[in-house]
Amino acid sequence: MSTDPLVVFTPSGKRGRFAKGTPVLTAARQLGVDLDSVCGGRGICSKCQITPSYGEFSKHGVTVAPDALSDWNAVEARYDEKRGLKSGRRLGCQACVMGDVVIDVPPESQVHRQVVRKAASARPIIMDPATRLYYIEVDEPDMHTPTGDLERVARALRQQWDVTGLTTDLPTLAQLQPVLRKGGWKITVALHKTRADATPTMIAVWPGFHEGGLFGLAIDLGSTTIAAHLTNLENGQVVASSGIMNPQIRFGEDLMSRVSYAMMNPGGDTEMTRAVREAIDALAAEIAKEAGIDPSLILETVFVCNPVMHHLLLGIDPVELGQAPFALATSDALNLTARDLELGTLPAAAQIYILPCIAGHVGADAAAVALSEEPGKSDDLVLIVDVGTNAELLLGNKNRVLACSSPTGPAFEGAQISSGQRAAPGAIEAIRIDPVTKEPRYRVIGCELWSDEDGFDAATATTGITGICGSGIIEAVAELRLAGLLDGSGLLGSAEQTGTPRMVPEGRTHSYVIFDGTADDGPLITVTQGDIRAIQLAKSALYAGARLLMDEMGVDTVDRVVLAGAFGAHISSLHAMVLGMIPDALLANVSSAGNAAGTGARIALCNLEKRAEIERVVRQITKVETAIEPKFQDHFVAANAIPHKTDTFPELMKIVTIPQVSFNAGGDREGGGRRRRRA
Amino acid sequence: MSTDPLVVFTPSGKRGRFAKGTPVLTAARQLGVDLDSVCGGRGICSKCQITPSYGEFSKHGVTVAPDALSDWNAVEARYDEKRGLKSGRRLGCQACVMGDVVIDVPPESQVHRQVVRKAASARPIIMDPATRLYYIEVDEPDMHTPTGDLERVARALRQQWDVTGLTTDLPTLAQLQPVLRKGGWKITVALHKTRADATPTMIAVWPGFHEGGLFGLAIDLGSTTIAAHLTNLENGQVVASSGIMNPQIRFGEDLMSRVSYAMMNPGGDTEMTRAVREAIDALAAEIAKEAGIDPSLILETVFVCNPVMHHLLLGIDPVELGQAPFALATSDALNLTARDLELGTLPAAAQIYILPCIAGHVGADAAAVALSEEPGKSDDLVLIVDVGTNAELLLGNKNRVLACSSPTGPAFEGAQISSGQRAAPGAIEAIRIDPVTKEPRYRVIGCELWSDEDGFDAATATTGITGICGSGIIEAVAELRLAGLLDGSGLLGSAEQTGTPRMVPEGRTHSYVIFDGTADDGPLITVTQGDIRAIQLAKSALYAGARLLMDEMGVDTVDRVVLAGAFGAHISSLHAMVLGMIPDALLANVSSAGNAAGTGARIALCNLEKRAEIERVVRQITKVETAIEPKFQDHFVAANAIPHKTDTFPELMKIVTIPQVSFNAGGDREGGGRRRRRA
Repeated sequence: MSTDPLVVFTPSGKRGRFAKGTPVLTAARQLGVDLDSVCGGRGICSKCQITPSYGEFSKHGVTVAPDALSDWNAVEARYDEKRGLKSGRRLGCQACVMGDVVIDVPPESQVHRQVVRKAASARPIIMDPATRLYYIEVDEPDMHTPTGDLERVARALRQQWDVTGLTTDLPTLAQLQPVLRKGGWKITVALHKTRADATPTMIAVWPGFHEGGLFGLAIDLGSTTIAAHLTNLENGQVVASSGIMNPQIRFGEDLMSRVSYAMMNPGGDTEMTRAVREAIDALAAEIAKEAGIDPSLILETVFVCNPVMHHLLLGIDPVELGQAPFALATSDALNLTARDLELGTLPAAAQIYILPCIAGHVGADAAAVALSEEPGKSDDLVLIVDVGTNAELLLGNKNRVLACSSPTGPAFEGAQISSGQRAAPGAIEAIRIDPVTKEPRYRVIGCELWSDEDGFDAATATTGITGICGSGIIEAVAELRLAGLLDGSGLLGSAEQTGTPRMVPEGRTHSYVIFDGTADDGPLITVTQGDIRAIQLAKSALYAGARLLMDEMGVDTVDRVVLAGAFGAHISSLHAMVLGMIPDALLANVSSAGNAAGTGARIALCNLEKRAEIERVVRQITKVETAIEPKFQDHFVAANAIPHKTDTFPELMKIVTIPQVSFNAGGDREGGGRRRRRA
Repeated sequence: MSTDPLVVFTPSGKRGRFAKGTPVLTAARQLGVDLDSVCGGRGICSKCQITPSYGEFSKHGVTVAPDALSDWNAVEARYDEKRGLKSGRRLGCQACVMGDVVIDVPPESQVHRQVVRKAASARPIIMDPATRLYYIEVDEPDMHTPTGDLERVARALRQQWDVTGLTTDLPTLAQLQPVLRKGGWKITVALHKTRADATPTMIAVWPGFHEGGLFGLAIDLGSTTIAAHLTNLENGQVVASSGIMNPQIRFGEDLMSRVSYAMMNPGGDTEMTRAVREAIDALAAEIAKEAGIDPSLILETVFVCNPVMHHLLLGIDPVELGQAPFALATSDALNLTARDLELGTLPAAAQIYILPCIAGHVGADAAAVALSEEPGKSDDLVLIVDVGTNAELLLGNKNRVLACSSPTGPAFEGAQISSGQRAAPGAIEAIRIDPVTKEPRYRVIGCELWSDEDGFDAATATTGITGICGSGIIEAVAELRLAGLLDGSGLLGSAEQTGTPRMVPEGRTHSYVIFDGTADDGPLITVTQGDIRAIQLAKSALYAGARLLMDEMGVDTVDRVVLAGAFGAHISSLHAMVLGMIPDALLANVSSAGNAAGTGARIALCNLEKRAEIERVVRQITKVETAIEPKFQDHFVAANAIPHKTDTFPELMKIVTIPQVSFNAGGDREGGGRRRRRA
């Protein structure tokens, strides 16, 4: 009927005519407007808050009279009194259409609201969680038409929410009868779907309307650290983040030593599985406590991890991942339960999603990076480098995406470095060396000041200066090169050769003293020739991996470089390029994506469709196997110098001047161009 | 091409023309002939044995020449040498069609072979198990197209068996890699489906071709006993049967006392759940040992049980089943795993199927009886009585099926009877009392002879005579009535009143001495007035239940009565009718179905489609609730006499003469008709 009032929803612009007296929520549902509701329009959940606008809207061709919606009613008044309703807000299930009206759905009332990601360049996360809450009113049992309580819950979901095909699990079923009776046949259920078109599983039940929320964990299970983000699954907000060391470190620092441990020790894999599961369980308990929420509300967990961690988490012996052809037991994504992984902190029925692996050396963590950074949607050619104990590399654009992993070892994380340490307060994270005086200045984690600024000593008195972390050692090596203290082959000069007493002998080689705290029983922090070699090996592996992908793609340059990994966020692009870690690119086109794997886990946690998307995408990624590719060795050897020949780094040479010094092990300085200044 | 040879399969009669050289198995598959194969035509499994016929077959219009099939080949010769091939048999995957031929598929080569059931009237069980074996050859992993081993197994199943949508569980996945390598990429997998159209789950893997078979348990989980049949899932044969007492008896003899225990003792339900699961687990281990098979080969278990046992098995507090409206937590069939029920003897991934419940008092055991006896397919009106501690009754025909349960108590099982015992060697199971001499003769379990036959004493020397079991007490009470020692109201006469010294005083009432072994320190086996009362209560409840169903159906008589239950197999129809346990029917129309619930469990174990059938059927059964129906009480009171008025048992009166004696508690014999002889 054309005389029915016109309802226009913003921001969607969806519009339609509805009979007078139609609740706004009903109109929204019929038009497919994204307006949330858990209680199904019973005035309980307050998720359907809307803001009517009054006046003339030429854009929409509507004039809204003051009486366009029904009067404020008792339900709204009660809610306002109890919880407070923002000025101008109405409950969509209570306010009825009485005349032409423009209705704004604020972001917090949208099911598919957007969650802003920290990185400025990043796309927002759209909420579309696999687990959702539904409030239902269930028929009481009737002896004359006997059906189980579960079957009547299924009927209520069908009738009240159009949800069909309900299943559940034993632990939830065992709770159903007391919860139904406690709630007076009104309950809230959490339904989980593994796919948008899958039938739902009921994984939790609460009496009455459940106000406690619904949470999920995004876990980045690394070889060295396990990081978790506890996320509110109703609005996508991260409510707590926490991390712990991976207790498997005691079985081996890097992945291959853990695989060896499993091979050499019968039951060793089971031992490592138990250790990591216990650690995750403890982390879940700790993060829930930190956020002040009951762990029983954590109903989803997403894991991203490399293949070895993946298998050890699942209880699969990783032995096949230690030898060619590096066969995964399974490469597809997995839907499991907390009970499957023996995570007792979480409800037994809590759902686990593990992203797919790309290949035997390129795991669910690389898939998560692909999900976060979306190289396959890029117009220009992007190289994504996720640096960890193993580095994962993705190179691609809309046409094609390649992936490989590269065994960098833990040097970039500060391990196997003489003064190295993990990124923690007191660690030197940035350093500059004056090319004239050869004197260093630096910054430590936990203090914003540089060491030559006033107040630095006082500010660092508590933490002290304890060592160098990953980003610090990269800058140190690059700065040593820029200051002419390190030659292109990776040799440190002597005090004589360089003219600075900071170069001290260490056996037949030399070290550079950054900080000498020995007078106060503090550490002596140096960069040794051994440190340089460790970094050279790591960066050569990384660079060789990138080159291999570029060869496969048939290109000599990339348009963009994205540095990912917790570490990637702190690394200086310039220094990484001076070091020759990454291929040459315009400095403006090198960006940091932060912990892209962790972000990928958060995306999969919040958005079911994104899980399906990454499952499709990983099958389209071409895997390049570094371990068996002879060219990898060639690139690795060629990449040893710091940096390579100038013709391979033309963009870099426009920015900095790299001294052409050359030292021999014995002593005399060679070559020219010393004391060239940085541009 | 009409010149291709014609292949006719018997017994199906399916026929088609195939190019010369086509393997018989291939022809059978293309025609949809039911010819088994696990190895997919590789000459390994020998499941596809066929028998070619030669000569002229006017019925099929075919003349089969001696060279109609290819020559006996090396694979067949090797198999014959190793295992022996029956004379005239060929392997269907090796023998190729060379001319017109008639091929017989023997029963043991049919997937859907029939399993003969013991009861003569019963339909055979058709094999169509939910879990089947598949032999596959899996591609080796390839670094250049990296996929997980599981994904390559899925591909092999798709390519070699047209099986799609494979999933698996963690325990099976953890075994996959070593099994694939041990088998040289040739493995046998067990795939389970919950429905004919469901995607399969891989629940077991073996290297190479698995010859160990595949087994299932059909478990009848009763309040008092737990009976299990271990069945070969490839041919349906029961390889071992075993039973144990339900350890929950220590928490309460009957169901309601167990529900009370759960209500009165916090954690009592958990205690009972643990007890029954442990007992089932031990039973599974015992039966596997008895049959000499590895419990890891038991991949399916079907449970039938009453609702209280159902909930306690699942770990659901049965409290709601103890009070109106007797709401089940769930009434639908359940698909679970051994891990869900903590049955550690079985593989964690072993599948559990629990039949649906009909209502809060009519459980999966009644559903199993319905599956076995199929009242809904009967042309005539059949009453099925499953006697246990609770009796389940089904009344129906093609038009409508009704069900109820009746609280008979354990008297029919020999419990709460003074000389009662469970059916075991030494128990009196049959008894006759001479109406003239009033002397008894009887048979005990474990001996075929009657007590007045030569050799009885010697034959029973080992077991002795220890008590009366359920069928014995029913016969004893009926015989006492027929011999004029018991009046219609249920009073036993004195020695004076009856003229036999076998009637001895017991307080103010009298007992009948069946056997006095006290001289040799043996038992004194009597039927007391209390025993009569217990049996009267039980039989009145049973009869009242049947009457209630007949009222609901609007009938006064039934065409057939089927006695089910382990006990039903041993009960004398005549005596049951004299006692008034069951409504009057032509004696020829009263039959025993043996343990119909157990048979129903076996059917569901062997046939997936039957699971779907019973799930449909139970939803069509009308439940009659005895507990709240006032007429039940009326029928119960009216059914107290033994038997009722003659006009309610006209058929019975044509067969036997029931003395019209009447005793009062004090003493003198009343009424006439004493010493009437049996017809």
